[in-house]
Amino acid sequence: MSTIDAVLKSVGEKNDINIDKVTVVGAGEVGMATAMSILCQGIASEVALVDMVEDRLMGQLKDIQQGIMFLNAKVSASADYAVTAGSKVCVITAGVRQKDKETRLELVQRNTDVLKVIVPNIVKYCPDCVIIIITNPCDILAWVTWKLSGFPAGRIIGSGTTLDSARFRFLISEKLGVNPGSVHANIIAEHGESCVPLWSTINVGGARLRDRNPKIATENDPENWLDLFQNVIKSGYTVRTLKGFTNWAIGLSVAGLVKSVLKNDNKVYPVSTLAKGMCGIDQEVFLSLPCCLGRNGVTQVIEVKLADEERRLLKTSADKLKEVIDGVSLT
Amino acid sequence: MSTIDAVLKSVGEKNDINIDKVTVVGAGEVGMATAMSILCQGIASEVALVDMVEDRLMGQLKDIQQGIMFLNAKVSASADYAVTAGSKVCVITAGVRQKDKETRLELVQRNTDVLKVIVPNIVKYCPDCVIIIITNPCDILAWVTWKLSGFPAGRIIGSGTTLDSARFRFLISEKLGVNPGSVHANIIAEHGESCVPLWSTINVGGARLRDRNPKIATENDPENWLDLFQNVIKSGYTVRTLKGFTNWAIGLSVAGLVKSVLKNDNKVYPVSTLAKGMCGIDQEVFLSLPCCLGRNGVTQVIEVKLADEERRLLKTSADKLKEVIDGVSLT
Amino acid sequence: MSTIDAVLKSVGEKNDINIDKVTVVGAGEVGMATAMSILCQGIASEVALVDMVEDRLMGQLKDIQQGIMFLNAKVSASADYAVTAGSKVCVITAGVRQKDKETRLELVQRNTDVLKVIVPNIVKYCPDCVIIIITNPCDILAWVTWKLSGFPAGRIIGSGTTLDSARFRFLISEKLGVNPGSVHANIIAEHGESCVPLWSTINVGGARLRDRNPKIATENDPENWLDLFQNVIKSGYTVRTLKGFTNWAIGLSVAGLVKSVLKNDNKVYPVSTLAKGMCGIDQEVFLSLPCCLGRNGVTQVIEVKLADEERRLLKTSADKLKEVIDGVSLT
Amino acid sequence: MSTIDAVLKSVGEKNDINIDKVTVVGAGEVGMATAMSILCQGIASEVALVDMVEDRLMGQLKDIQQGIMFLNAKVSASADYAVTAGSKVCVITAGVRQKDKETRLELVQRNTDVLKVIVPNIVKYCPDCVIIIITNPCDILAWVTWKLSGFPAGRIIGSGTTLDSARFRFLISEKLGVNPGSVHANIIAEHGESCVPLWSTINVGGARLRDRNPKIATENDPENWLDLFQNVIKSGYTVRTLKGFTNWAIGLSVAGLVKSVLKNDNKVYPVSTLAKGMCGIDQEVFLSLPCCLGRNGVTQVIEVKLADEERRLLKTSADKLKEVIDGVSLT
Repeated sequence: MSTIDAVLKSVGEKNDINIDKVTVVGAGEVGMATAMSILCQGIASEVALVDMVEDRLMGQLKDIQQGIMFLNAKVSASADYAVTAGSKVCVITAGVRQKDKETRLELVQRNTDVLKVIVPNIVKYCPDCVIIIITNPCDILAWVTWKLSGFPAGRIIGSGTTLDSARFRFLISEKLGVNPGSVHANIIAEHGESCVPLWSTINVGGARLRDRNPKIATENDPENWLDLFQNVIKSGYTVRTLKGFTNWAIGLSVAGLVKSVLKNDNKVYPVSTLAKGMCGIDQEVFLSLPCCLGRNGVTQVIEVKLADEERRLLKTSADKLKEVIDGVSLT
Repeated sequence: MSTIDAVLKSVGEKNDINIDKVTVVGAGEVGMATAMSILCQGIASEVALVDMVEDRLMGQLKDIQQGIMFLNAKVSASADYAVTAGSKVCVITAGVRQKDKETRLELVQRNTDVLKVIVPNIVKYCPDCVIIIITNPCDILAWVTWKLSGFPAGRIIGSGTTLDSARFRFLISEKLGVNPGSVHANIIAEHGESCVPLWSTINVGGARLRDRNPKIATENDPENWLDLFQNVIKSGYTVRTLKGFTNWAIGLSVAGLVKSVLKNDNKVYPVSTLAKGMCGIDQEVFLSLPCCLGRNGVTQVIEVKLADEERRLLKTSADKLKEVIDGVSLT
Repeated sequence: MSTIDAVLKSVGEKNDINIDKVTVVGAGEVGMATAMSILCQGIASEVALVDMVEDRLMGQLKDIQQGIMFLNAKVSASADYAVTAGSKVCVITAGVRQKDKETRLELVQRNTDVLKVIVPNIVKYCPDCVIIIITNPCDILAWVTWKLSGFPAGRIIGSGTTLDSARFRFLISEKLGVNPGSVHANIIAEHGESCVPLWSTINVGGARLRDRNPKIATENDPENWLDLFQNVIKSGYTVRTLKGFTNWAIGLSVAGLVKSVLKNDNKVYPVSTLAKGMCGIDQEVFLSLPCCLGRNGVTQVIEVKLADEERRLLKTSADKLKEVIDGVSLT
Repeated sequence: MSTIDAVLKSVGEKNDINIDKVTVVGAGEVGMATAMSILCQGIASEVALVDMVEDRLMGQLKDIQQGIMFLNAKVSASADYAVTAGSKVCVITAGVRQKDKETRLELVQRNTDVLKVIVPNIVKYCPDCVIIIITNPCDILAWVTWKLSGFPAGRIIGSGTTLDSARFRFLISEKLGVNPGSVHANIIAEHGESCVPLWSTINVGGARLRDRNPKIATENDPENWLDLFQNVIKSGYTVRTLKGFTNWAIGLSVAGLVKSVLKNDNKVYPVSTLAKGMCGIDQEVFLSLPCCLGRNGVTQVIEVKLADEERRLLKTSADKLKEVIDGVSLT
């Protein structure tokens, strides 16, 4: 009798799929920051990694496994999507980067082609999952994923302006000396240049900033809060210039979304969702609005009362996204 | 349009059953300590409480709900078992107390009659759950629950000597100034007077105590470690004398078991399991042995090599339990 | 050589005071719920309990210790305040209950007399700590504690309307189906009947409820949101009627405050603080306003822009508290 | 009045140094994995990063800050050691890599020269801290750090074989289907080729493997468990070959050590400590033995009873380390 047989008597069958399993597609910097944010925070007890670059993937797998006893979780990895089976949430971080002289639409089309491989595999192995897409331009690709998956729209979430809002809150919090969790400030619309900061609703522990500075973030603002928003817009570029890529902020943000889906907790985040019929938008586009998240993905959208200028900017952002979507080929 | 309709646009259906839902039957001191240990540690995002004493139950429910924003979890309660629907783990703490002049067997029979109501309801609403039974005598009642449920034996767990072992480890840890998590010491067999401490295997960070004191816990032990075990045996009585009941230690212990089942982590705990065929036991009894826990309950039993005396005591404990079981009427 | 000496070689001195030590004075239902909320959430790695009823205290101590290996924390208890040495936060839950025919002022005086024993002991053993007082009437007793301690006002925190606000948020969250953490609603002023709900600032994920229902919580509110506030006011009474006492909600709330002090995180909570000079209050009273909490206690108070009616009610509440304070004898 | 002054009234001074502050020196892959493991697990509420490469450092800082609202922690970074002020633990990950044709001793000397800059700065700004050194060869450099710091030996910890043991436990756990936390197996001595696996003491839930397979890991082992140890030895090389570097396992392991120091929990880990007088070692070397960790670093060393062969290998490892130490110049 082997040592194992002598020491262990099997009683029943093991169940190899954890109830809170999460898949991360793409084991690059963003994928790994997402996976480690999930594992280290104990958000899921099992993360499956999928990537086409098998050597690097196996290196990441073994490296995490060798420290896994400090986490009480399980990690698996493969180039084969069978490893994702039964995941409750799938996060897509994979995609190609913009080439020199490539237009935005050409990039969108190439990433759409990548999703044509990924999404059907996710649908096959995780038919009940919520898909969170980080790959940029994430609003467009959220729409693409929705179309490719055939899932109800609520089960597709683009990471969207969750990241921009986290940056916004951090900068405000630093200025005020107040925890960013107590700074309630949202950026909505496109994750990108046409995003819309909701200055009119920013409040800190119940105090609306606009009540104290009616010209906040306008051209006549004596305190020039617009500078702060410009810093948000430049954040990604700044970090990429300094360290070559961004990963932690997006990884932490998406881990937060995953947590709310798994916990089914109905917390509100600004994420990219099918916006048709919301806040005066009549196009079939995905863009970020404050949404309640739960096991079925987005369950409710918050209808913020927008200032006129905010409403106009949101409309412009939606139009811009619609134009790109119209150029995408799904077949 | 109501405020709610104006503020919130529904997108998809909510799913009202969390993936890691846990039920606690019995909202007395032990049930509440178990529920709060689970909720405060973030082990489950939803706990359902069931009790027949509806006033107290509603008081507990409201009291927890009013502080729930500090926990990010959900709690529900009812005298109707429908509230338990879809739980992955059900913990039974309900039961009657020993009356004056009542024999042990009479008590067992009365608690068996209580289980005849509880178990079929659990089976009905949570057909795939793991049941953990705390009500005493928990080894006998684990066997009863197994019979009443028709579940595979692995899916019934008696809290058993998890508590005794936690007490044992704490007292050793205090003596050595070492964290109890680094003290590996088990008590097996009956949760009660015939429990068996495994002195031969106690080790601390890799050092076996018996290697240093071959007479440890024998009658000739110059250091009289047996005293420490006597303190373990008396622990429950001591606490009851001082404060009227015990709740925190058992609640924390069982929360640990629940965590391992939900996380499917295969950690080893001494819990009450169907012992037939293990460690030389040939009767159909439940008693505690070191077991791996996962989503399907007990999946593997560890075959510790027992010293002769330990083996003899285990046999005696099994015999004693079998005798009680033979007197129980399930119909 | 003893087993211990053979197994363990001492290297340096142990340091027996943890950096995040917390004391809870009073081991009744509220004290224990507070202590367990702190321990189970890993907020502090050491909790010291102080109580005059030594038997019950020792029972609580032993009961927690026996399950402590599931928490990785340390607990100690004594009737002697030396056990509190070096605590960073001390929570006072001890106090006497109202007797039949006793006036409110008589009760205040009797609890002031209790604090004359507790506070100097805390000051002696924990000279740098933050004191959080739960004992009611907590606004008055926070003022008393401030005077007795000689501490800077910021280092005295009354639990105040943290609890009322948690109740308020839960009821709103339940009505909307949104997580209470995404419902930003505060109740300020006295913890008691003259507390003031800030309807004008309630927002959910950026949407102000008053923008959608301008008459919210007024007499002409077609949706009658005032009912919800009445439920908040009655919450404590309701729970006490059902289960005999309240403990979980207050314990969880205060654990949240303790966490923010220890983490030095500048989160905002409505807590009782020295309000003179804030929001138009010119008396030396403690009452609840939104405050940033950190290692030095309250570091900043948020000046919410109040509606006229809210400002009037706040003033009334302050006047009422001042009147009681003027009747208290500190010597 | 500015918006900030209108919204926030300052009450007392803020305290800008958190009680559980941790410094990580070196913001490369290992440093960042360590910092993120600490932050994501909530082990410390403040991490300060120090590195000489300021651009990359600022990029890492901003990236983490932008996601910090999901963590409730604080991060700071500078090339100036003033940023480390008041840290309770300092982790050193900085160092140079082996050049072509460089001897081991030349590498040691170059890293010693790096430490001559780092250590005095740590001593200056964090006079009471515990130093954990990861830079390799970590046993030699732990000795160097001890000499340079003038700290009591217990306050210098080399990460040592914590990592090797974590790898060992993972591989055994995978073979058995048991959680690595329930597999008690240590590797001691040098972190490197002369490390010593303690086969004689491996136990799983109380069952010693050698009791079942007396020839385990010997040349005559019918099950060839030595293969598993060979995999441990090759782990680092394997991961480096696959992904270019190792970071997660060491980051997670060291985060575990940091946690035990901050929590003052006396958990046992195999870490590099001054071994003179322990287990028959009479040289002044640092090498890994099972140690209890607390606020003062290593407080107790566990004297495991070694098999003859294990004792011989430990002696060889110590001799080898002593020889290198004798060649190091501290001035």
